[in-house]
Formats: sequence, structure tokens, C-alpha cells
Amino acid sequence: MKKIITPDASSYSELLKRPVFETKSLNDKVQEIINQVIEQGDDALFELAKKFDKVSLSSLVVSEQEIEESLNLVSDELKSAIQTAHHNIKTFHESQREISKPIETQTGVLCWRKSTAIQKVGLYIPGGTAPLFSTVLMLATPAKIAGCQEIILCSPPNKEGKIHPAILYAAQLVGVHKIFKIGGSQAIAAMAHGTQSVPKVYKILGPGNQFVTAAKMLVQQNGTAIDMPAGPSEVMIVADESSKASYIAADMLAQAEHGVDSQAVLVCSNQKILDSVEEELEKQLAVLPRKEIASQSIQHSLSIVEPDRNKQLEIVNHYAPEHLILSIEDVEEFTDKVVNAGSIFIGNLTPESLGDYASGTNHTLPTNGFATAYSGVSLDTFVKKITIQKVTKEGLKKLGPQVEIMAEAEELIAHKNAVSIRLKDI
Amino acid sequence: MKKIITPDASSYSELLKRPVFETKSLNDKVQEIINQVIEQGDDALFELAKKFDKVSLSSLVVSEQEIEESLNLVSDELKSAIQTAHHNIKTFHESQREISKPIETQTGVLCWRKSTAIQKVGLYIPGGTAPLFSTVLMLATPAKIAGCQEIILCSPPNKEGKIHPAILYAAQLVGVHKIFKIGGSQAIAAMAHGTQSVPKVYKILGPGNQFVTAAKMLVQQNGTAIDMPAGPSEVMIVADESSKASYIAADMLAQAEHGVDSQAVLVCSNQKILDSVEEELEKQLAVLPRKEIASQSIQHSLSIVEPDRNKQLEIVNHYAPEHLILSIEDVEEFTDKVVNAGSIFIGNLTPESLGDYASGTNHTLPTNGFATAYSGVSLDTFVKKITIQKVTKEGLKKLGPQVEIMAEAEELIAHKNAVSIRLKDI
Repeated sequence: MKKIITPDASSYSELLKRPVFETKSLNDKVQEIINQVIEQGDDALFELAKKFDKVSLSSLVVSEQEIEESLNLVSDELKSAIQTAHHNIKTFHESQREISKPIETQTGVLCWRKSTAIQKVGLYIPGGTAPLFSTVLMLATPAKIAGCQEIILCSPPNKEGKIHPAILYAAQLVGVHKIFKIGGSQAIAAMAHGTQSVPKVYKILGPGNQFVTAAKMLVQQNGTAIDMPAGPSEVMIVADESSKASYIAADMLAQAEHGVDSQAVLVCSNQKILDSVEEELEKQLAVLPRKEIASQSIQHSLSIVEPDRNKQLEIVNHYAPEHLILSIEDVEEFTDKVVNAGSIFIGNLTPESLGDYASGTNHTLPTNGFATAYSGVSLDTFVKKITIQKVTKEGLKKLGPQVEIMAEAEELIAHKNAVSIRLKDI
Repeated sequence: MKKIITPDASSYSELLKRPVFETKSLNDKVQEIINQVIEQGDDALFELAKKFDKVSLSSLVVSEQEIEESLNLVSDELKSAIQTAHHNIKTFHESQREISKPIETQTGVLCWRKSTAIQKVGLYIPGGTAPLFSTVLMLATPAKIAGCQEIILCSPPNKEGKIHPAILYAAQLVGVHKIFKIGGSQAIAAMAHGTQSVPKVYKILGPGNQFVTAAKMLVQQNGTAIDMPAGPSEVMIVADESSKASYIAADMLAQAEHGVDSQAVLVCSNQKILDSVEEELEKQLAVLPRKEIASQSIQHSLSIVEPDRNKQLEIVNHYAPEHLILSIEDVEEFTDKVVNAGSIFIGNLTPESLGDYASGTNHTLPTNGFATAYSGVSLDTFVKKITIQKVTKEGLKKLGPQVEIMAEAEELIAHKNAVSIRLKDI
């Protein structure tokens, strides 16, 4: 682990720099797959399933029967946990509904917004040995609350041509309309452009490997909306004497087990905390199933000793962490001053894991510094806000002449005429 | 003008298709300019001003003196109109502030969101003979309300090395922090990457020609957020017997004067309305200063006769117009059912021009069908919402075990440990 003691503010940029990945050559490969899906539709998807997923599918769609079977393959214990998570996520995201009331910006000029669901959305859930049912909950729950009319989900099949039952269980619990056995960049291409089986959607969401990420960025160039740009997961922890070394180490390792490129950054008030955390890290790492991955990730992690609260804050806002754990005493004051972060976890008893699964906040968050400009997924992600205006005679009489002046100054005489022709009549 | 009578719903896709522009070769050229700005900074900007704007600049920044001078060059009449517009835009966008209150998703588990401004934003305002001060108001006003700490503006200088005084007036009225004499894709590159003079921003907003648009899409690929993808401006008008042909024609021409690629689509209940509109179009076109442009645009415009309200609605939602003017009788009911549109103008007395300048709604809207997934610019465009959670002992006791089960099912044992280690202590 890299350790820095009270660095100068001028070095923050260098110190907090994220690794940069080369994407150009990847883009060409992924664009080829996208083109293949555009040209050959379902045929391409069957072929690519053979090539990449090593499976010969009879159908791209998960059948009703497969979904019903999955209900028996998930333990009651896990079902109940998933239901709890769903309840909390639903409760928090339902509270994000906007109530818009008309505003009279001047007499006779009424403006308001109405939220409408994005009608068709596509969710991507990565495959692999572990089933990411939590991401199904995080994406489908707000989509359902928003009222999206068509919610489809793609996930790569395993070698038996199946999708993990826990994913199917979560999808049917929330109300996903159709599930497809399609993985990788071909899934993104299918949802962006549509095929015989897969409906074209307006927005695509969800995590994925570098191929999926590249495909999402490429289809975005052609007008399909995406949730946000992706990057490796990361956590920043700010700790002082009120924190507990074993908790901090556990939180760092939870981040580190995601992958060797995950980042865990510790900002603590003194060297003693850092030493205790290191000791705990060693102890906890030893018994971790994914210790290979986690230890590599921890190796290139960063710890900064900085006693000054304002500088700690500057470091946080400079880094703009995806996850920010604050194990400090004056936590409310500090939280108020954080301007760049995806999600904040307050105090010793709020580990990131809770938000990853079930506190109710969304775990799809801006990483890689994107928290400077992006929010995490929320109800907002699934709605558009249409503005509406209605002007009365009185309103037009007052506002019209002003608009005529401005339209003329911008040399848009037809814009002016559209007002003048009405003013003459009233 | 293309005219279609009661088309079959199966033909809507073909009928309402927008023209597609080839962008690949443009991207290469624009990427070169971006690279030049990254490598040479200010030097590149001075050189490109010579090359494209035909001016040898002494400074990239607009001086205090230039801004003060501009105040004397704008007529009091125009100043007053701009102030009215600013007032209405400010009033409407201020009403978009979100008040977030903590939600207890289950006992002891508190979640909430806080809105924070994107700290650094860059606005682009195109040049040309007509000064687009209205766009300055539309972008800078919500940025200011959001509390963005650094709001910069780039606009190409004229051959005298000046920016139009109306743009400078609007910028200082709203409170833009710094104005630069930089145009085209080099302006986007400078704001995305930063130079000696131009600060790097997190999000770039504003309209522009195809070079600007291409540059925005390219810097987005590298992580700079943008307002939305761009396309030619467009209006759809739904009209029945309650409408007035002269108003409809005026509104279509207001759209048509923007450029030869602008689209005006009329959906009306019967042939008689269409005939009257055509007659009016001819009459009004004849006296329009931009009749060359407008008549070309009108030529490739589309009119659809469709008496059925449900089918009219289907056409609207299929096209997803940037601007939607509803001059019909049962307008509230119709408005409720619109799901895809940028901004709606209700009734005979609400021409699009009012919203373009001064009703209070934003005129930066999703075009080219992007209203299916994107909203127009609003206060939301300039804020991020950070989620926050705080869990009590009781909350952790109840929720912790559920999270342990899910983390284990996803094979993320360090995630589980972060909960277990705390549960042991309480």
C-alpha cells in the first residue's frame, strides 16, 4: 500500500490520479460485433452465444417455465433477504417522485413539468459464477416505479444455456417484462438496435466488463441513452480517533475483492490509525476466499495521513469517490461540505455493504471521478421531464412585445411574426 | 411539402424518419483539433482563431473593460426584454429545487439525497451574425441557481476579435464568471481538457454546428459530461378546427427559418386545415427575410391528415418532437397522454417563440427523437444528487443478517465480513 503523510495540496491531482485504460483497439472489435448484430439480428446472437458463451441456444428468451423453476431453486432464506432489499430500495426510490405544480412566471404565463417514464429500457446483468441479483433489484425497481412500459433484461447464459435462478427470481419479483440469454457487447447492440426477438430500447443500464462498457459508449454515440460512463469500483474512507481499525480494514477489503483494479483509499488523521488498519488488513486478508484478488488490489491502494479537516475535505472533493465512508466525529458538518461523491456512508455502523444490497440507496454509482458531474441511478434515471407552458391573452399582451424585441435582435423574424400575428388579434 | 392522408400506423416509422448525417469523417478531423488543443494549449487556440475566425487575438479572455463597454452598446429596450426573460427563466428554474427529507426505509435505516452543484461548467454559444443571447440566459441561469462555482462561456470572436455585446450583457447579467473568445471544436476541447487560460470543466453545454456537436460527443467518450446529443431543431403541430391557419403557418416558419435541415411537421384533423395552412405559408413566406432558408426547409416538411385523436397521439409519441404545439380542443386530455416530447405549447396563444425566449421554460431541448430518453436542460442538469445513509445499532441488527445472506449468495465474502465484524460488537 502506498502511504503518504500530509501531502501538499498541489500534489493531490497526481496523488489521486486513477489508472487510465486504453480503449481504442477494443472499440474496433466491439464495433464489429455491433455491426454483426445490426446486420444479422437474432442469427448473430445465436452465433455469438456459441462463440463466447460456449452454448448452443434453442431460444434467446427465458421461458415462463424456466422462471417458475427458478422459484424452487432459490432458498427461502435468500428469497426473504431479497424481498427485504426490494422493500427498502422501493421505499427510498418511491420517495424520489417529483410533484410539479404550475408556476406563474408572470401574470398569464404558466409553466410546469410533467415526469413521464422512458417507455423502453434495457438492463444488463453480468454473468460469471456469482449471480448479481442485487443489480437486478437496483435497476428494475426504479424502472418499475417510474412506469417504464417495457423493461427487458439481458444476461449471459452459462454453458447449460441457463441464467442463474437468483437473477430470474429477482427479475420476476420486481416485474421485468422479458429476459434474454444474451451477454457481452452483443447484448448491448441487440437492445440498442433491436432484433427479431429483442425490442429496441431507448436507454441501457447496468455494469459489465470492458466489452460491455465499450459497447455502451459506442451505442451512446448513436443516440441510445446510457446510465453513466463506467470504471473500476472504489471507496474512500475518512477516519479519525472515533473509528475502528477492524471496521475500516473490512470495508477496504470489501472493495478490494471486486477486482484487482478496485481502489480503496484511506484518509486518516494520524499514523497510529494507519498502522492499526494495516495490521487488521493483514489479519483479515489471510482468511478471505478471494485473497488473491483482494491482496493485489490492496497493494496498489493508497493511504493518506492528514490531520486537517479542511484538507481531508479537499482530498475527498478532489477524488470524487464512488463510495465515501465517514468514520469521524463531526460527521454532519463534514457531510454538508462534501460536493463530489456517489454515495456517503455515515458512522461506524454503516458499512458500504449495506448500501450495496439493502439500505435502500442505489448501488449503481458514478466512479472514476465521474461523481464530479454525474449522479448515481435513481428514479430520475428512468423518467424524462417534459416542460409545458400555457399563456393567456393577458400574458401574451405583456410578454409578446418583449419576445418580439429579442427575436428581432437575434434576426429571427419568423419567430417575431409568430407573436405579432397573434398580438394583432387580441 | 410532403402530404399524407390518414397513414396506416405501420408506416409511422418510415414516415417520421429523420434525415441521417454521416459523422465518421468529421470525427477524425475534430479529433485532430482536440489533440492539438491538448498538446499545445493556448497556443493552439490562438492559432485556430487565426485559421477559422480570421482574427489575431491578443487575449483569449474577454476583459472587464470589454464587458463594461458592451453595457453601452445594448439598447435599453433590449436590456429590458432580456431582464424580463431572465426573470421568468429564473422563477421557473428556481421552482425546480428539490427538497429532500430523510426516509426511514426500515427501523434504524435512514436514507436521503443531497443536491450539490456541478462545481465547474462550460457553456458554448455559437457565433454568426445574430447573437444568441437567449441561449446564454437558458444555460447560465440554472447554472447560477444550482450554485456552480465556476461558470465559463466560450463563443467565437468576430473578425474584430469581439464577442457581440448582447451576449456579453446577458452573461454579466446572469453572473457568468469568465468569457473566452474561442469557437468551434477547439472551444469544446479547451473546456474539456483545460489550457493555461481556460479552466477544465466537468460538464459542457450548448448548441453549435456539426464541428461543435462532434467535439462534444468525442469529449463525452473521455468522461466530460454534456447536456445531450444534438440534432436539427424541429416542431410538431397538432391542429383541429379550433386552430387558426395563420398561426400554424407562422409557427412552422419560425421553425423553418433556423436552417434548411429544420423540420416542421403538421398533424391536422382534415384536409381543409391543411389547405388553409399551405395558403398562409405561401403568403407569409413571401415577406420573410430568411425566405431562402425557410422555403427549403418547408419543402421537405411533412403534413399528415389524421382525424383520429388516438392516432394523432400515437404519431406524436412515435416522433417524440422537440417542440410540440397543441392547437386542439381537448388539449388537457391530450397533453396528459403525451409521453415523448421536449416541450409542449398549449393552445392558440402559446407560440413556440414564447418558450424560445421568455416564458420561463428552457429552450435547450432534446431533438432528433432523443425526447424518448432525454429531458431538456433544467436545474437538474447542473446538480448531482449524492445519496447518504446512516444506520443505527437497531437498524444494523435487523438489516445486517439479510445483507450477510445476500453477500454470501453473490460470493462476496469480504462484503459479508464488513457486516459480521460489526454485528459481533453490538
